[in-house]
Amino acid sequence: MDVFKVSILGCGSAKPTLRHNPSAQIVNFRDNLFLVDCGEGTQLQMLKMKVKVNRMHHIFISHLHGDHCYGLPGLLSTLGLMGAQGSITIHLPKGGMELFKPLTDFAVHNMDIIYEPYEYGNHVIYEDKSLIVNTMPLKHRMECVGFVFREKPQPRHIIREMVDFHKVPIRCMKDIKDGADFVKEDGTVVPNEVLTKPADKPRVYAYISDTLPLKAVSSEVKGADLLYHEATFGNADAPRAQETCHSTALQAATVAKNAEVKRLIIGHYSSRYKEEQDLLKEAQTVFPNTVLADEGLTFDV
Amino acid sequence: MDVFKVSILGCGSAKPTLRHNPSAQIVNFRDNLFLVDCGEGTQLQMLKMKVKVNRMHHIFISHLHGDHCYGLPGLLSTLGLMGAQGSITIHLPKGGMELFKPLTDFAVHNMDIIYEPYEYGNHVIYEDKSLIVNTMPLKHRMECVGFVFREKPQPRHIIREMVDFHKVPIRCMKDIKDGADFVKEDGTVVPNEVLTKPADKPRVYAYISDTLPLKAVSSEVKGADLLYHEATFGNADAPRAQETCHSTALQAATVAKNAEVKRLIIGHYSSRYKEEQDLLKEAQTVFPNTVLADEGLTFDV
Repeated sequence: MDVFKVSILGCGSAKPTLRHNPSAQIVNFRDNLFLVDCGEGTQLQMLKMKVKVNRMHHIFISHLHGDHCYGLPGLLSTLGLMGAQGSITIHLPKGGMELFKPLTDFAVHNMDIIYEPYEYGNHVIYEDKSLIVNTMPLKHRMECVGFVFREKPQPRHIIREMVDFHKVPIRCMKDIKDGADFVKEDGTVVPNEVLTKPADKPRVYAYISDTLPLKAVSSEVKGADLLYHEATFGNADAPRAQETCHSTALQAATVAKNAEVKRLIIGHYSSRYKEEQDLLKEAQTVFPNTVLADEGLTFDV
Repeated sequence: MDVFKVSILGCGSAKPTLRHNPSAQIVNFRDNLFLVDCGEGTQLQMLKMKVKVNRMHHIFISHLHGDHCYGLPGLLSTLGLMGAQGSITIHLPKGGMELFKPLTDFAVHNMDIIYEPYEYGNHVIYEDKSLIVNTMPLKHRMECVGFVFREKPQPRHIIREMVDFHKVPIRCMKDIKDGADFVKEDGTVVPNEVLTKPADKPRVYAYISDTLPLKAVSSEVKGADLLYHEATFGNADAPRAQETCHSTALQAATVAKNAEVKRLIIGHYSSRYKEEQDLLKEAQTVFPNTVLADEGLTFDV
């Protein structure tokens, strides 16, 4: 199956700690790399994890709190310095360009930086022939979105021996992958099911950044293969979560359960917790297939 | 003697490495902390080194290359988040405010940030009753300055037993510290030298950031107790140093020798060197009392 995986570069929250970096992840889809959020120090973590930055041409920023975007100037500056090939597009909330463009205009000369501000809401912000990425509005102290990475439906798999046996010409192959039957010169019909196997089910990864727990998220990410959901607080700090527009581990797990996702990653831990195992235990009471994010981990979608 | 020391937070150069942070230092003068340059990740290194940020109210930025200033938004944001007391003043080159103010205006609400742009040249940019800081123009690919921290001449030291013996009243003490003789009621003169010892010689620390080697630096920092001078390159890469407006270790040592400083710290190592001992050896051929900067080290001035 094609590569589709998520690597955690940072899963701490606003107050810096020596245990976690601020938010950042790499989504690797068929060796195209997408950076999701870019807290301070992201470029260093990329270096540590040997991320192939030349394969990265899109950055998605969920919102403009510093722990999600202050790594941008340094990263872009270094890419410019290294003479990175091609352009890089920064998808960020409206207003964000005004904050970062002065810095990057001043410092980055060797590469094209394209700022693509998106409107708060539910919008497709990236699409290619096999992947589509949309935003979904979250509820935080400022406008903040999640990102949903959806693999597009793929053509059916050719059964090599059968197409050879029936002598299907090359020119017919595309139609057959798309589901057509094969009609021989003598009029015999070979049903598509004989020649192909069903395509893999398109995979979905959702990154749900800073937010109160939302029913809308469960609907949006229904059946996703992998969900990253912030879980800044434990249950004992639920009032603090409410007050700061964050989620508890239990709430994140409830979203995952209602969405019937296959697996949940929690992260964005508050600096107050020295031991995230407690957050994990709380989440697993509701959604057993939960794992803890940690710097350096990679998860298959 | 009053505290006057320098702690290295970062001594790498523009290209990030896993061995060094970009430029940043803390100058501690009588428990007032001054941050000198602020590369990305400075706030994390401060956390690691347990720097008392509440004692820090001035930041000096030598120039606007990212490895000397991209840690500012994160640091200031965190200070705001922590509810740091009082204001913080950023002394930075003209043009720098326009780069950083949009970010800090957007993100920092709980503390006053005062931007104090300085003109390229030789200017006093900070002064209190016991310390004076001036810029000195360097020669780099953009306008860049060094910072010279000069302790002000201090009053003479009172010899407690002698002032007690001669029954010097409290009201006369300030004059005596300033060098006056003591005249008793019967007209007897007690010479100042009997009552006091000379003040300690005022100490000087100079931070010489990115630059070609300059004779003017040797004059400016003549006799300084401690000199930090960039030494981005080894001698074999002298042409590259010239081309990028940096210094070699040997050149830094020559500046130190001509300035007759007491001790030299070299830093701002290019990422190409895995082993800075070679730079040290080169410098020591000219100026033996040279040491290597490294994250976490503290040097008395």
